Amino acid sequence: MHFGDQLAKALAVNGPLCVGLDPHPNRIPPIFGNGLPGIEAFFMAVLTRLEGHCGIIKPQIAFFERYGPDGLRVLARLCAVAKARGLIVLMDAKRGDIGSTASAYAAAFLGPDAWVKCDAITVNPYMGMDTLEPFLNMADDRDKGIIVLVRTSNPGAADFEDLQIQDQPLYQHIAQALAPFACERRGALSGWSSLLAVVGATAPNEARKLRLTLPHSPFLVPGYGAQGASAKDALAASRDGQGVVVNASRGVLFPSGAYEAGSITQWENLFDAGLQKAHDELRAAQNV
Amino acid sequence: MHFGDQLAKALAVNGPLCVGLDPHPNRIPPIFGNGLPGIEAFFMAVLTRLEGHCGIIKPQIAFFERYGPDGLRVLARLCAVAKARGLIVLMDAKRGDIGSTASAYAAAFLGPDAWVKCDAITVNPYMGMDTLEPFLNMADDRDKGIIVLVRTSNPGAADFEDLQIQDQPLYQHIAQALAPFACERRGALSGWSSLLAVVGATAPNEARKLRLTLPHSPFLVPGYGAQGASAKDALAASRDGQGVVVNASRGVLFPSGAYEAGSITQWENLFDAGLQKAHDELRAAQNV
Repeated sequence: MHFGDQLAKALAVNGPLCVGLDPHPNRIPPIFGNGLPGIEAFFMAVLTRLEGHCGIIKPQIAFFERYGPDGLRVLARLCAVAKARGLIVLMDAKRGDIGSTASAYAAAFLGPDAWVKCDAITVNPYMGMDTLEPFLNMADDRDKGIIVLVRTSNPGAADFEDLQIQDQPLYQHIAQALAPFACERRGALSGWSSLLAVVGATAPNEARKLRLTLPHSPFLVPGYGAQGASAKDALAASRDGQGVVVNASRGVLFPSGAYEAGSITQWENLFDAGLQKAHDELRAAQNV
Repeated sequence: MHFGDQLAKALAVNGPLCVGLDPHPNRIPPIFGNGLPGIEAFFMAVLTRLEGHCGIIKPQIAFFERYGPDGLRVLARLCAVAKARGLIVLMDAKRGDIGSTASAYAAAFLGPDAWVKCDAITVNPYMGMDTLEPFLNMADDRDKGIIVLVRTSNPGAADFEDLQIQDQPLYQHIAQALAPFACERRGALSGWSSLLAVVGATAPNEARKLRLTLPHSPFLVPGYGAQGASAKDALAASRDGQGVVVNASRGVLFPSGAYEAGSITQWENLFDAGLQKAHDELRAAQNV
């Protein structure tokens, strides 16, 4: 199935919540063990809790790459389990390079013999449209998606992304360059594109304007929860409740008190309650 | 020793040539074997040939990441051998992300328990200065360097990097934002900074202008050879022959006829001749 349609289905069934797999060391509850084995046990447990609340995960590869080849093995095993559970996996890798190198990255993550199972990858557009093409081509061939950084949620986004060029910020120029590529890649069932954009929840007005430029692109929205944005802000660019994937990482992964959990059951109760809250809050905002 | 001083020393001793380790599959001479073992054997052979001609290598991580955890293990072994041979290793990874994630990447590549030995890493500035700070801090603590994409050598660089903002291209605004950080990081011996910039050889006029904005930053210059730029263009921004690292990948790695080499000795002769030519050409342009 076309990636835009897959994503639209997941959003309709489970709501906009995407859980980010960001294994901040020092925050994994000790009950799961230490180091990389602890990270693996923790996320294996997380993956068993998502059903009915979240159909999409976003592993942050940096925290696995931190551990080198062993970390990537853990990431590959987690993604395999996630796929077996029917989850959509958005790999947050923010790769970007010239043509032949971009082709290697595209093959690594989206190709037929990729070492890790995922459905889409985040990419950085700074170097130009020719650096995105190998990802787009591979995604097209394989019913995968690509997710382009447009307007991010960090304070530094103001430094370059917001620079005004002919009365429009840089990120709007990037969105305009992406628009025809997104339009060409609409799913037959949903009308949503397999070319997504990262649009931070900390900039809801910008998100509404970007929706006009990119009417067919689902937005991947970071910044909800721990970074301070509300569910309403996160869903600013949704259309009939569709077209927005809201990522929550720390806010869902590490609820208050869970670090000190004395048993797996106690941890499960705390995790489930936090997950339910994020799910319900976003579902409610989705259906406004 | 401060990274800027280490680099200046390598450039003075061996000239501006940096050999890029880009294992394009299908171009590794069959005499070295197939697949990942062939890639490892090929680059281990390359590393034995560089002495006296090149003091700096630039592995392109994408081509190793293509093979997942096993590929990263090969990369780590190659970098360990390169360091044991006294080479400076510039990891071409073009990473970039928000603060806590950037810290994980910085630890992965430049930290005290990094899984791979390297001296500097390329980073993408699109998301803003706060995404570069974790890399700068780690580099400062550990006598390492960071190399920021400014003006790249691909045709698509015109799409966004060259957009005019108040009569200056975007990449000049980025260079200006980097300038004070580069100035603070000058080596005591050479005056060259540990904050480098990627400035493509396909844009020599732009490189000369960027030299005025970033007088202390060594430039890492891709595009020489296979991408069409001459030695003179590649060294456009050098100062007294210093401050420019010229990368050659395909042009040096895969000389004409080497793919068909029937013996290691035959391959060595072809490789050595091509390496000598690139070295001499750049040395001559350096000393003009």
